[in-house]
Amino acid sequence: MSEATTPRTHRTRIRSWWGWGWADAHPDDAECIATGALVPGTLARPLPLPKVADLRIGPPAVQAPRSLAPLVTADPEDRAAHAMGKAFRDVARALRGRPGRIPDLVARPSRDQDVADLLEWAGGHGVAVVPYGGGSSVVGGVEYRGDAHRAVLSLDLTAMDRVLEIDTVGRSALVQAGILGPALEDRLRPHGLTLRHFPQSFEFSTLGGWLATRAGGHYATGPTHIDDFTQSLRVVTPAGTGTSWQLPASGAGPSPDRFFLGSEGTLGVITQAWMRLQERPRHKASAAVAFTDLRAALEAVRAVAQSDLAPANCRLLDAGEAALSGASRDGSAVLVLGFESATAPVEHRLARAVELARAHGAVTPPGGTGPGTRPDAASDAAVGAWRTAFLRMPYLRDGLARMGAVVETFETAATWDRIPALIEDVRREVGAAAQAATGHPAVVNCRLTHVYPDGAAPYFTVVAAGRPGEEVAVWDDLKAVAAEVLHRHRATTTHHHAVGRDHRPGYDRQRPEPFALALRAAKNALDPHGILNPGVLLDA
Amino acid sequence: MSEATTPRTHRTRIRSWWGWGWADAHPDDAECIATGALVPGTLARPLPLPKVADLRIGPPAVQAPRSLAPLVTADPEDRAAHAMGKAFRDVARALRGRPGRIPDLVARPSRDQDVADLLEWAGGHGVAVVPYGGGSSVVGGVEYRGDAHRAVLSLDLTAMDRVLEIDTVGRSALVQAGILGPALEDRLRPHGLTLRHFPQSFEFSTLGGWLATRAGGHYATGPTHIDDFTQSLRVVTPAGTGTSWQLPASGAGPSPDRFFLGSEGTLGVITQAWMRLQERPRHKASAAVAFTDLRAALEAVRAVAQSDLAPANCRLLDAGEAALSGASRDGSAVLVLGFESATAPVEHRLARAVELARAHGAVTPPGGTGPGTRPDAASDAAVGAWRTAFLRMPYLRDGLARMGAVVETFETAATWDRIPALIEDVRREVGAAAQAATGHPAVVNCRLTHVYPDGAAPYFTVVAAGRPGEEVAVWDDLKAVAAEVLHRHRATTTHHHAVGRDHRPGYDRQRPEPFALALRAAKNALDPHGILNPGVLLDA
Repeated sequence: MSEATTPRTHRTRIRSWWGWGWADAHPDDAECIATGALVPGTLARPLPLPKVADLRIGPPAVQAPRSLAPLVTADPEDRAAHAMGKAFRDVARALRGRPGRIPDLVARPSRDQDVADLLEWAGGHGVAVVPYGGGSSVVGGVEYRGDAHRAVLSLDLTAMDRVLEIDTVGRSALVQAGILGPALEDRLRPHGLTLRHFPQSFEFSTLGGWLATRAGGHYATGPTHIDDFTQSLRVVTPAGTGTSWQLPASGAGPSPDRFFLGSEGTLGVITQAWMRLQERPRHKASAAVAFTDLRAALEAVRAVAQSDLAPANCRLLDAGEAALSGASRDGSAVLVLGFESATAPVEHRLARAVELARAHGAVTPPGGTGPGTRPDAASDAAVGAWRTAFLRMPYLRDGLARMGAVVETFETAATWDRIPALIEDVRREVGAAAQAATGHPAVVNCRLTHVYPDGAAPYFTVVAAGRPGEEVAVWDDLKAVAAEVLHRHRATTTHHHAVGRDHRPGYDRQRPEPFALALRAAKNALDPHGILNPGVLLDA
Repeated sequence: MSEATTPRTHRTRIRSWWGWGWADAHPDDAECIATGALVPGTLARPLPLPKVADLRIGPPAVQAPRSLAPLVTADPEDRAAHAMGKAFRDVARALRGRPGRIPDLVARPSRDQDVADLLEWAGGHGVAVVPYGGGSSVVGGVEYRGDAHRAVLSLDLTAMDRVLEIDTVGRSALVQAGILGPALEDRLRPHGLTLRHFPQSFEFSTLGGWLATRAGGHYATGPTHIDDFTQSLRVVTPAGTGTSWQLPASGAGPSPDRFFLGSEGTLGVITQAWMRLQERPRHKASAAVAFTDLRAALEAVRAVAQSDLAPANCRLLDAGEAALSGASRDGSAVLVLGFESATAPVEHRLARAVELARAHGAVTPPGGTGPGTRPDAASDAAVGAWRTAFLRMPYLRDGLARMGAVVETFETAATWDRIPALIEDVRREVGAAAQAATGHPAVVNCRLTHVYPDGAAPYFTVVAAGRPGEEVAVWDDLKAVAAEVLHRHRATTTHHHAVGRDHRPGYDRQRPEPFALALRAAKNALDPHGILNPGVLLDA
């Protein structure tokens, strides 16, 4: 096996082939049982860890030609690890031994020409190509469904992981698409620079994945979406390769970059990008405040979002979410506020934000008794509890999956006037659907991940007992109910998780028809054989 | 003549059919002569004002069907006023009695269905449709060139000029595309809100025009481009009408709005939009500082742009531009700094910005003697002089045109590392080309209109004597030389003026080929008869 085809490990740790993140970070059986005990109706013992051998992966349906052979592997472990992303739906299928279609081959190109050659070969042989970055898709974005193609190639970009150039004058970097978040930041740190883009998947996702899916970073306001950090893209398509100019801004026609951002591997493969960087923040301050009433909390958040305070963090946790993460234990909603700056202290901005929150009824700290209390150690503890839970959450989800629970997270965005009723309806209707499907009460929590002057992005977590062996069917039902509620409230199908295959029903109804026509025509022009990520965003 | 077909006047003032702005604001002969005297080699007396009657406009080549007749006029004055935009090239052609092809008909739809009906009729009859807002294009965006179509219809959107809805909770408004800048702000002002988008053409351009051309506002940093204010668009295309959802943000596929923003009337007609609004600023402060050295000034501006100060104005005028506007008389470059906020005083931000400028060698006020001087009345005067000149400039250009001068303004954007050499090369090469073409020395001035952490947008003004009767040819030559320099420096063809027909050579070379394929395919799908603004952005 050549170096290019060795399953890649990072810092000697092994990625889980079936679940989130590092294999060694998965909850053990005892932790699964303890977590499962919190969800009525789950199993008594965890489902066993799935084994690749049990999948009985056969030989690939195609062989790569000799010229491409060094880039390609048919190793079963590698193919299994590239069969799906990391949605609950994917984990549940792996646990039940029914993963999506296993790709026939995994390719790891190391340069643009490799990508072009692979696309050319695939186009000529009816082979579907599924671009693959960190594999952290939670929307069915990196698998193949159906049987319209003779074979499936997973195009793993992680061998293209170099920072090619850093411009310290204009603060930007030319970066290959396959780099993972931590490696990118490691390279930028010595220059005092950062991309400052930290999606929850940061450790396990790539620049190319962020670009292809219009990822949202951790920060609540200001530049946080990958779109805003993009100066230039190189895209390899079956119809040729193109590179947009590296520019701070341009008004020359519709933005070429904005057309490929969010194209989710259906129009071409993003292989490198010039990205805007920032100075690393030196000043930070954060605090948590609590609200007894969610509507008042929403008004407070709107006031902060419509001020010029620009908090780095402005994360509102409803009572359930705050309790789950340990940020509050008394049924309060908690607002975590954080400020950062590379150049100036931020305490006064934090103070003004806390003041605004108090004017809308906030008490500080969470668990405190009134508006007179300053943020203090209890507030710090709430902030810390939330952060820890945030990163551990996906692992716990997999633990719950092993206990036969159904866990779903979905997110959206809507204008402020729609937010309160949207949150209420999602809770009520998805909760009722979960109860009906499983016979047990479900948890439906909400937080706001991003806030804007004109609206917010609510993020929902649903935890319910499953029906043994039918977890995927239950998940699909809940997903459909959620999509209906979002559609009725004109809340977007996805704010930052992407469309993939799982969100197609909502997306197809949301997308304006003239744009659908344009997108289909562009797809046919760039991908005439219809090999690029078939089924994502649109049908061939 | 029905109300819909009455040539529209505004506040009882009449728009010039051949030149910039209000007819009654044009320089009189004496002012033309005085201005012309500043440019060696111009005429002794101004060219006469052009008359529509001299154009001998014939009957239209087509008649609208009875059902559309109430929307359409063949009035010669109206047709002449819709024949071209307001580039120097357009004014010079009018002055020499050789305007572009006169449209056969001018239509003023008052609702989406009118637009759809007009497009349907035009598609079936080989009639080119040129969408027309305020008519302020300086890139040949609102005329027809060539003879591939049987007739030309100018589609004037200014009868669709209503604000349909204002959402004070989320601060947004649903606005028809044909509204002019002042009318829009008049409607928003009673709510304490503003779009805060003030391109130089503000009085004479429409929301739809801003959207179709990705207009840049007056402000130097932060949200200033119309793209960033757009929540949702309605677009009427020959293949159907679509409306994107009104959202604060979305990650559902490539942005539909970003695809139609900048499409310059080639893919569809934008008829209305939900726009983000802001609270009206209550706190303002500005100051001017001077530099003896432009390179030092550029470093100062970069430092300000890379800070978190976010000035509303950060306009660097080179020595020539500063002298022309009266902002400085001693050969200094002048930096005009301005801050605005709806919520908090801004003096400390201004002070920090002035401090940064001083650290890079600025003296205050312009004409002052050293870094110890605080901004004062002389600084205010420099700011005021610049503002007045800014709004008067297009009228003076037309005065110079009547004196046979050639005047061109073009703008671009590039990353910081490219800016100093770009400015030097434009000055030297365009200056030399002007001298060679006219036998007289030319003025080539530069200012920065917008600044970004990663680059800036230089704006150039060229004033030269013409060759009598060949002003357009000289202008075309200078334009070609400028395009070459921009291309060599990888500076965008246009930062906010748009591509139109005049910038096609530069745009065609800049646009990545896969995106060109996608755009052409989309154009064919949305506009199968090739009637929409033919020749703009791409060929049919």
